[in-house]
Amino acid sequence: MTEGTAQRTGAPTELGVAVLGMGNVGAEVVRIITENAEDLRARIGASLVLRGVAVRDLERGRGIDRALLTDDPAALVRRDDVDIVIEVLGGIEPPRELIRTALQQGKSVVTANKALLAEYTGELATAAAEANVDLYFEAAVAGAIPVVRPLMQSLAGDKVQRVAGIVNGTTNFILSAMAETGADYDEALAEAGRLGYAEADPTADVEGYDAAAKAAILASIAFHSRVTAADVYREGISSVTAEDLASAAKFDCTVKLLSICERVVGDDGRERISARVYPALIPLSHPLATVSGAYNAVVVEAVDAGRLMFYGQGAGGAPTASAVMGDVVMAARNKVYSGRGPLESTYASLPVMPIAQVPTRYYVAMNVVDRPGVLETIAGEFAKHGVSIAAVRQEGGADATRLIVITHRAPDGALAETVSALENMEAVTAVSSVLRMEGTHE
Amino acid sequence: MTEGTAQRTGAPTELGVAVLGMGNVGAEVVRIITENAEDLRARIGASLVLRGVAVRDLERGRGIDRALLTDDPAALVRRDDVDIVIEVLGGIEPPRELIRTALQQGKSVVTANKALLAEYTGELATAAAEANVDLYFEAAVAGAIPVVRPLMQSLAGDKVQRVAGIVNGTTNFILSAMAETGADYDEALAEAGRLGYAEADPTADVEGYDAAAKAAILASIAFHSRVTAADVYREGISSVTAEDLASAAKFDCTVKLLSICERVVGDDGRERISARVYPALIPLSHPLATVSGAYNAVVVEAVDAGRLMFYGQGAGGAPTASAVMGDVVMAARNKVYSGRGPLESTYASLPVMPIAQVPTRYYVAMNVVDRPGVLETIAGEFAKHGVSIAAVRQEGGADATRLIVITHRAPDGALAETVSALENMEAVTAVSSVLRMEGTHE
Repeated sequence: MTEGTAQRTGAPTELGVAVLGMGNVGAEVVRIITENAEDLRARIGASLVLRGVAVRDLERGRGIDRALLTDDPAALVRRDDVDIVIEVLGGIEPPRELIRTALQQGKSVVTANKALLAEYTGELATAAAEANVDLYFEAAVAGAIPVVRPLMQSLAGDKVQRVAGIVNGTTNFILSAMAETGADYDEALAEAGRLGYAEADPTADVEGYDAAAKAAILASIAFHSRVTAADVYREGISSVTAEDLASAAKFDCTVKLLSICERVVGDDGRERISARVYPALIPLSHPLATVSGAYNAVVVEAVDAGRLMFYGQGAGGAPTASAVMGDVVMAARNKVYSGRGPLESTYASLPVMPIAQVPTRYYVAMNVVDRPGVLETIAGEFAKHGVSIAAVRQEGGADATRLIVITHRAPDGALAETVSALENMEAVTAVSSVLRMEGTHE
Repeated sequence: MTEGTAQRTGAPTELGVAVLGMGNVGAEVVRIITENAEDLRARIGASLVLRGVAVRDLERGRGIDRALLTDDPAALVRRDDVDIVIEVLGGIEPPRELIRTALQQGKSVVTANKALLAEYTGELATAAAEANVDLYFEAAVAGAIPVVRPLMQSLAGDKVQRVAGIVNGTTNFILSAMAETGADYDEALAEAGRLGYAEADPTADVEGYDAAAKAAILASIAFHSRVTAADVYREGISSVTAEDLASAAKFDCTVKLLSICERVVGDDGRERISARVYPALIPLSHPLATVSGAYNAVVVEAVDAGRLMFYGQGAGGAPTASAVMGDVVMAARNKVYSGRGPLESTYASLPVMPIAQVPTRYYVAMNVVDRPGVLETIAGEFAKHGVSIAAVRQEGGADATRLIVITHRAPDGALAETVSALENMEAVTAVSSVLRMEGTHE
């Protein structure tokens, strides 16, 4: 960016920007474009000029020039004086159609829309490639934390083996609160709602849909393949109990909702991808165990780089806007210098392995009848399914005996069958919780 | 990277690579280029072809085709069939001249040479801009950890306030060993040497030169200014004692060699940069406190993004080669797609604040005579220089009384004057240690 030196003749001195959506993130994006105009101009080599902001309700006051507001996003993205479109609406339609149109019209697009990307990156990346423009989406995964760019660029010469992260702030807030205060799930969810960490309808967060969309994006990038949200095995946190957190602590563990993308080798020796989201026990010594509250963190393991960790604020207006604006500056520079950043790379086309074949470890909590030989019978059931037990703990008093079993790694299918069998055993009153365990090498 | 779609007509199908240096990093770079050829080709859209490797001694066997070796790096970088030059020689000359020549000849350059960049980024970036090629150096700071690219690109729309990191593995290994085992500095250094974490002449590491070069690079990028190694205030770790680590632990702290780059506001209200490297006490609860052994970590604080942390392996052949190869893939793609990444951005041109004016906190350990009123006299000396005391701790037995004072934030100059005055006090037998304290907001 030694300005001017190599700027091509005829390069634009200003670039038009359209913002689609004026929620938390959109409002912060507009603020940064306005307040930091001088810095942005110096960094880009041209001025960013806000051409318009598409909103649903023109009447609501927003502290910006009313003339900039429009309720016709389709017209805005087609304007000749718009070079870069920032999409922070969320949802599949109309964003999908708007972004496709923008790209086809030669505008670069920056989006934070994980749900859209988890389904339609392929179609949008193709449109961007055909128009020779940028499609950037750093803000779609882990908010302010640079994860997309490091995976796509910094690790472009390495072989990523695994990405595991806490990429949903709502669920991490809830699980952290449960671990710290002993609250049960409903109490912690209510508290998250009161503090603004959970939406009125928290389904997308607590049932893992948001984390699964991010896992699909991360897996696609990390493994140069196309993974959609439907390929991601998903469990939410609504069945995690206060007892589970207490039991986890006794095993020096805590429970986190993890998005895991792994390169796995199938029985046929072929590489596959496992992408999965579920609440899992991890050792307190694991780097992700200390990530608490609304923070996010992503651990990346690559053959040559080894283990890397990225940590920061995964949501919120300003942090997400920071990530959006980093992409905007890069897209703008490419307009000035006639360049283009990397688009999706799907050459490896690795297939996704069904969860049943993926080796994981289970934590099984059950109520058992209190009589001699019960542990032996139960252990026999695990053995029958080829599942090896790593640790057992018996808890509770006279009326109910709670038995916790943590297994070694086994195919998820075998573990699921073991649990089914346990549920039908006379000695087992109830299987109260089944969680997985991650972050160990046993 | 949807290959082919938008690749311009006449784009190269192969790109020639020259590697300068075949040490730990060079050998790993050559291995990756050879072993991962197919993946690299798919990611770039053209094949990387190794044209030559410049070494000092042609006779030493290196497990690669002898015909590729040359002891004439100047001729290698001028070859018409070389498109990308990877410099992993280290040192100022000949790398400076070789890189300048390569850039002038239109080759993109990837280097891991922090000492060179800490002095000559300006000259090299100008040469790169004039030739419209890339100069990338992710591997120069914190090895495999993506830090340069996140700062230059992901945070391009934000305002970085502070970068603080552990960016030297040797000193972190030594300080971690001292903290964990109670070993003194010489023992821990010897152990680091035995395990390959310290070089035969460890001066560049233990005296903070390596960390200062990295601080200069980080400050330049973070603050869009030009900061050289000479601008960085520097203290090494050789005077840190086992007693300091023990005392730090009593204050719930540990000692780390930190590279700190801060945006500070001077008395005149103008923004300046403080860049400094020294061993400092940090609270055990600080994210950098748990970074142990040869690992590196960098914390970045930006206005909108908030606090981010990057963690991983900061040195070693394969991790550093991973960072080099990420840059090589990006530079290669830019050759294929006629693009160019961001070069240096120095528009802000912030001046550097002298250390004397920078507010820091001090930890002062001294031996004092054991009589009533001593603490009062000493406290009075701090007050006389306008330095406020945050904590005091008296240690030791009958023969010597050790007094530890931790101050609040005050200009470094006032703190240094206080220490001078203490050294001349009759009540103070010796000032045994002066360290700084970081990572708190007092």
